[in-house]
Amino acid sequence: MTLVLSNEEIDQILTMEMALECVEACQHAVEAEEAINSPRVDTLAPTKFGDTEGVYSLKSMSGLWSAAGMAALRINSDVLIWPEVAGNIRRDRLASADGRWNGLMLLFSMETGAPVMICPDGYISRMRVGAANGLGARYLAREDSEEMALLGTGWQAGGQLMSHCAVRAIKEVRVFSPNPDNRERFCHEMANRVNAKLIPVESAEEAVTNADIVATGTNSMDPVHRTDWLKPGVHFSAVKVQEVDETFLDSVDRPFMFSKNPATTRPQLYKLPTVETPEGTDGWWFKRDEPLWDRIEELPQLLSGATQGRQNAEQTTAFVNNVGQGLQFTAVAHKVYQEAVTRGIGHELPTEWFTQDVHP
Amino acid sequence: MTLVLSNEEIDQILTMEMALECVEACQHAVEAEEAINSPRVDTLAPTKFGDTEGVYSLKSMSGLWSAAGMAALRINSDVLIWPEVAGNIRRDRLASADGRWNGLMLLFSMETGAPVMICPDGYISRMRVGAANGLGARYLAREDSEEMALLGTGWQAGGQLMSHCAVRAIKEVRVFSPNPDNRERFCHEMANRVNAKLIPVESAEEAVTNADIVATGTNSMDPVHRTDWLKPGVHFSAVKVQEVDETFLDSVDRPFMFSKNPATTRPQLYKLPTVETPEGTDGWWFKRDEPLWDRIEELPQLLSGATQGRQNAEQTTAFVNNVGQGLQFTAVAHKVYQEAVTRGIGHELPTEWFTQDVHP
Repeated sequence: MTLVLSNEEIDQILTMEMALECVEACQHAVEAEEAINSPRVDTLAPTKFGDTEGVYSLKSMSGLWSAAGMAALRINSDVLIWPEVAGNIRRDRLASADGRWNGLMLLFSMETGAPVMICPDGYISRMRVGAANGLGARYLAREDSEEMALLGTGWQAGGQLMSHCAVRAIKEVRVFSPNPDNRERFCHEMANRVNAKLIPVESAEEAVTNADIVATGTNSMDPVHRTDWLKPGVHFSAVKVQEVDETFLDSVDRPFMFSKNPATTRPQLYKLPTVETPEGTDGWWFKRDEPLWDRIEELPQLLSGATQGRQNAEQTTAFVNNVGQGLQFTAVAHKVYQEAVTRGIGHELPTEWFTQDVHP
Repeated sequence: MTLVLSNEEIDQILTMEMALECVEACQHAVEAEEAINSPRVDTLAPTKFGDTEGVYSLKSMSGLWSAAGMAALRINSDVLIWPEVAGNIRRDRLASADGRWNGLMLLFSMETGAPVMICPDGYISRMRVGAANGLGARYLAREDSEEMALLGTGWQAGGQLMSHCAVRAIKEVRVFSPNPDNRERFCHEMANRVNAKLIPVESAEEAVTNADIVATGTNSMDPVHRTDWLKPGVHFSAVKVQEVDETFLDSVDRPFMFSKNPATTRPQLYKLPTVETPEGTDGWWFKRDEPLWDRIEELPQLLSGATQGRQNAEQTTAFVNNVGQGLQFTAVAHKVYQEAVTRGIGHELPTEWFTQDVHP
């Protein structure tokens, strides 16, 4: 049988602690050559949804974890636009499928090849992105971090909130987004998900000033903060490099990203078909021949102990989670699957519906 | 609504003429920069199915065709083995999913991003592989070709039979595979699919001798013929280079493959985890620094008229269909979808089942 889970069912099962454990464990498996994270594939072209000109994007990423005996494929099929909101360029996905979005995950057994689980990707993706940033904070943020700024109130911001509160005893989170309704709604909706007090604030500066951890989870393609708002010893946690003020990246004591290997990443395209990427940046939004590029280290080396994180309370640290990993989906989805089977959650469909009696 | 089609329903709809038209048209679209064929991704690791040691393989390939307004993703999740049969090494996929195989296709609308069709990949794959070889024969085989040899009686062999008979007025096809039952069964099953007379024969030599076209559609990882069986003016059509006698490739007057770009192809791995690829061949099974490599041309250039095919009746020609293209799936699946909608074939499921109300 093939298990079909909804986002709501996944939400019942998947805690941030589980996601943190899975994302860290699968990274150790990569080092031990017991897991594979395959390159993602992005296929993009101009399209039109009604009167709106956008870019169609088909994205897939896969990974395999031998210890779990599972492989997974995550698929997104989106219409992207880059509107200007509150002075910043954003990357948005249209709710073009009858007001809904297209993201699917397939989990396969390595023993039989059969799909053992099919589910939407939304909840799992939020948790595994959050978990990767949470691991960055676990190894980089000051142990005594209590105040956090959260910039952004969308889907990814929720994951960032949960993960940073899971790795540090955060007491207060100041939440900002340009739309007052969004920050009120977000603080209301997320209040029961964390122990910290959530406080909607009226400016990014108010959120960031005096924060021990600044986490960004926005759609912005422009910096969402200013370097002079940050205090000594701050840890900055971003889901993409464009959110970060370049002068901070240049000056931060310990800069980390997930991967410097261009084969495992793709730029977040700003515009298409003419991609306006500053020359020499290769879509990374900072030049590789700058001193910064050489100073940047990778999260996996931090997890394995091959490099050191924060060295004292005054250092500034940064982690930019620049890679969507198929392997992270595999690891988290496998755990969700195991729990769902144990707890009898979800619906079963005949696996025959997804297999065939010929082999091409 | 999302249309779900079975292999049998696709078989009702999809003719070889349609497949030939789609595969050629999408190739022209690539030249016009109106279609994208994305690199495939193969993720492989050792596994065990029962007591059988094999290699688990998750494969995906995608493509996008703007004129059709569609993109497609094709997914295979297989347990592979490399047994020796009749003295040749074969690449086989186990029927590990309760006696069945795992191959799925998703067709997406570029306008809404929604999945408009879901189906197994078997029939479409056979037809689009066959069509690519058929196009090779259309541009390379002698116009007066009447006798054909078909080596192999499996799934792909059926596609090769249909496509070559569609592009040339073939009168007789001599069919060989090592197992007599298989060749009898194949000739019986395929008799109504083509106008040619199908004759099971007892040796590869008997099939090949005096044939105008030799087509191979086997799982063999070793050559399935000998060069001295071939007659002047022959066209050789292979689904992979390993089937072809190297001395023929060295001597053939007009050698073609689908693509010489390694980014769009992957080797058919012989063994894992120790891949035994002759040094310098990069999985292509012939060395790139040999004169042959420089002489080989690509099918798309033949279709566009950028290069010439056969120049006279005595020349030997060869086409090795070395690339599984996500774009070909897109093109053929789009045509199948249009026809299915027009003719009311298949079952509709609510698209909501495959979409979500959050965007990660």
